[in-house]
Amino acid sequence: MKISIIGTGNVATHIGTALKNAKHNIVDVTGRNADTTNELATLLSAKANFDIANFDSSAEVILLCVKDDAIGAVAALLPRSQRVVAHTSGFRSFNLLAAAGDNLGIFYPLQTMKKGVALDFKKVPMLVEGSNETTATTLHTLAADISESIHSVNELQRQYIHVAAVFANNFTNHLWELAENILNEQNLNLDLLRPLIARSAENVAAHSPSQLRTGPAARGDFFTIDAHLNLLQNEPEMTAVYKVLTESILKNRI
Amino acid sequence: MKISIIGTGNVATHIGTALKNAKHNIVDVTGRNADTTNELATLLSAKANFDIANFDSSAEVILLCVKDDAIGAVAALLPRSQRVVAHTSGFRSFNLLAAAGDNLGIFYPLQTMKKGVALDFKKVPMLVEGSNETTATTLHTLAADISESIHSVNELQRQYIHVAAVFANNFTNHLWELAENILNEQNLNLDLLRPLIARSAENVAAHSPSQLRTGPAARGDFFTIDAHLNLLQNEPEMTAVYKVLTESILKNRI
Repeated sequence: MKISIIGTGNVATHIGTALKNAKHNIVDVTGRNADTTNELATLLSAKANFDIANFDSSAEVILLCVKDDAIGAVAALLPRSQRVVAHTSGFRSFNLLAAAGDNLGIFYPLQTMKKGVALDFKKVPMLVEGSNETTATTLHTLAADISESIHSVNELQRQYIHVAAVFANNFTNHLWELAENILNEQNLNLDLLRPLIARSAENVAAHSPSQLRTGPAARGDFFTIDAHLNLLQNEPEMTAVYKVLTESILKNRI
Repeated sequence: MKISIIGTGNVATHIGTALKNAKHNIVDVTGRNADTTNELATLLSAKANFDIANFDSSAEVILLCVKDDAIGAVAALLPRSQRVVAHTSGFRSFNLLAAAGDNLGIFYPLQTMKKGVALDFKKVPMLVEGSNETTATTLHTLAADISESIHSVNELQRQYIHVAAVFANNFTNHLWELAENILNEQNLNLDLLRPLIARSAENVAAHSPSQLRTGPAARGDFFTIDAHLNLLQNEPEMTAVYKVLTESILKNRI
């Protein structure tokens, strides 16, 4: 298919590359920044475009790979058409695209991705939704060309998946950061814990986390919990995190 | 060296196996449960022993691989000797072993391990401490035979490492469990998030988590934060966890 990509960030780069590798034709890349737009256009053998209204009119699908807050404003600059217009946000509605036509949808890759860091797109779960059957089918087919893991989910489900992803990724990364802070305070390095982090992630690849509970809270070991809180007594923020998670573990084990 | 192992659990099994593979002689395995004791003794080509006082007197090193709360009671059953007596707890003092002599120490493998699940022990950080130079050297040498990652740390450092490990492992596993609960409520499966979990763990293997911050709190995206809290409004426990971690991320990004 002929695809127009709006945006030049991490998602635009990885989705564009995956679509190009699947023999789709990226007709143009629209961006504001000359460097990143030219760079991505070159990578995708596409035209670089700097004015949304000037996008290649041969495009059958327009993908908005832009920040959540920009979706509505970008869509308002597109002419109304029967093209499929989709955005890549995990949380926002396709209704934000209403100015651009009636064939609207979601094309959300559920993975963290960075330009320049290789990614096996076949394993990236694609969450797809369409404002009507044809649009949903078009996006589903497109997704199936780049990934083996396609999921048709409605908006509410996608929002719950998004909040679950915040727990599973953003919050866990923050806990690793707090662990690093604790170690750095003692002139120690996160390398000490990297084997443990790698192993716990490997374990959850094959098991339910509910089967992998370990540690003082899971054991109801209040001696160690109190001793840990004592060590953290000058860190009110870490203490708050420690307490709320310990409380939650204690409740879940009942 | 001739080593006597007390305990038959996950740590006893993996440490015993690693020591045997490094050509040390496990003279006996002491346990209460006949099945697990005989099983581990067979695995380690050692005698099975069921009475602590009857341990093999040729042992040069005694390793207590028992629960934290049992360390003191087990040590009290050992005769005072000049042997090296060490325990494998990440949190407790070697002073708990005082009844058994003066050459006391810590031999703590900083990894989560389960019987029957293979482990590359060479990569397991070993935290070692001795009540005197000779003991520390003996335990350091022993650790170097089974691991490439040996760390001489004092008790306070080891305790901070232990609390950091709770953040990096126990708490992250709990967040994965909460994510699974959210998905299950929507009749969805954790498989949706497993690629994301794997990728975020891979990322932290090579970067500081402070360089990997993503998500609504890291962006200061209060629209999404409020919408997430709205989705969780019937889950007071998850709401508490969401709020405290979001708060902590917001503070750290300043």
